[in-house]
Amino acid sequence: MQVNTDYAKAIVRKYPEQVVIAIARDRNGKHNPITLGWTMITSIDPPMMAISVGLKRYSLEVIRHAGEFVISFPSKHMAEDALFHGTKSGRNLDKIAECGTRTQPAEKIDSVLFADAVANFECVLESELQTGDHVILVGRVVAAHVNDDEGVKRLYTLKAGYRMGGVEPEGNASPEHVTII
Amino acid sequence: MQVNTDYAKAIVRKYPEQVVIAIARDRNGKHNPITLGWTMITSIDPPMMAISVGLKRYSLEVIRHAGEFVISFPSKHMAEDALFHGTKSGRNLDKIAECGTRTQPAEKIDSVLFADAVANFECVLESELQTGDHVILVGRVVAAHVNDDEGVKRLYTLKAGYRMGGVEPEGNASPEHVTII
Repeated sequence: MQVNTDYAKAIVRKYPEQVVIAIARDRNGKHNPITLGWTMITSIDPPMMAISVGLKRYSLEVIRHAGEFVISFPSKHMAEDALFHGTKSGRNLDKIAECGTRTQPAEKIDSVLFADAVANFECVLESELQTGDHVILVGRVVAAHVNDDEGVKRLYTLKAGYRMGGVEPEGNASPEHVTII
Repeated sequence: MQVNTDYAKAIVRKYPEQVVIAIARDRNGKHNPITLGWTMITSIDPPMMAISVGLKRYSLEVIRHAGEFVISFPSKHMAEDALFHGTKSGRNLDKIAECGTRTQPAEKIDSVLFADAVANFECVLESELQTGDHVILVGRVVAAHVNDDEGVKRLYTLKAGYRMGGVEPEGNASPEHVTII
């Protein structure tokens, strides 16, 4: 049964929540990452993805300036990197150098991929929409890359307080699972 | 290491992906649900959530007509309901009646909550943005409800082919987990 409550008390029931890291080149040539939980796919053809970035974030001006960005799916082994890139500002800091996250050059845009991520998607900024205290940035995917290790899995925020890690299907044999091929 | 690949081959590395069900009243008075994996929060203050709905979906015209909708977080026990509401069209079908999903009246808008969900958020349609073959619909949350059973957890798509179920943190004692309070 549903009981009425405050939004803040209801929304903490959302976890686990997937994590991405958006990376764009700032006007000084520095590749600046930001960790985000607010992201979704938003078109099949052409493939597009959306992220929500806070109005006051340095990354918002960086992505707008660059007009392109990478969306990286960090692996479950990248919790410390994701935490670093999500809690520090790149305004006066080279987050990638400081944290030591391994990168590879992007192929179609002037950005970098995270070498140890599950996957990386190169995006061209297509449109934006302000939503309250955030802005939705929509990227059209122009190149995609995956980790050559197929066993590498995504990182999730497991609960409030930035607790991050991997997840696994609960009880594989359980009747909750529905398989449709 | 990252290797270049097709978007379709890279995006299947996204799972598990959270599931929501959006519900709105159509012009005949029928409450019509649609299951969606493409959703995100998009503002803290005021609280807002976004969903991506396909251009050809009946739900798109229903939500635009209603101007309001519920975003429900189905529980891991609702895999069959989520599958039903995600694979049938409500254009000529009363999906809730047919499937038998238990509802409660919403409080602030003319819609229904899913009684057995983890949480339900009543939203007023605030803005929209077309993105390729989908439309991002942004809702401002005007009321929130949670399941009175705090142990009820969310439903996820676990892999391609609509395989849905619950997830759990992987190996609680593993070094991948970072706790910051």
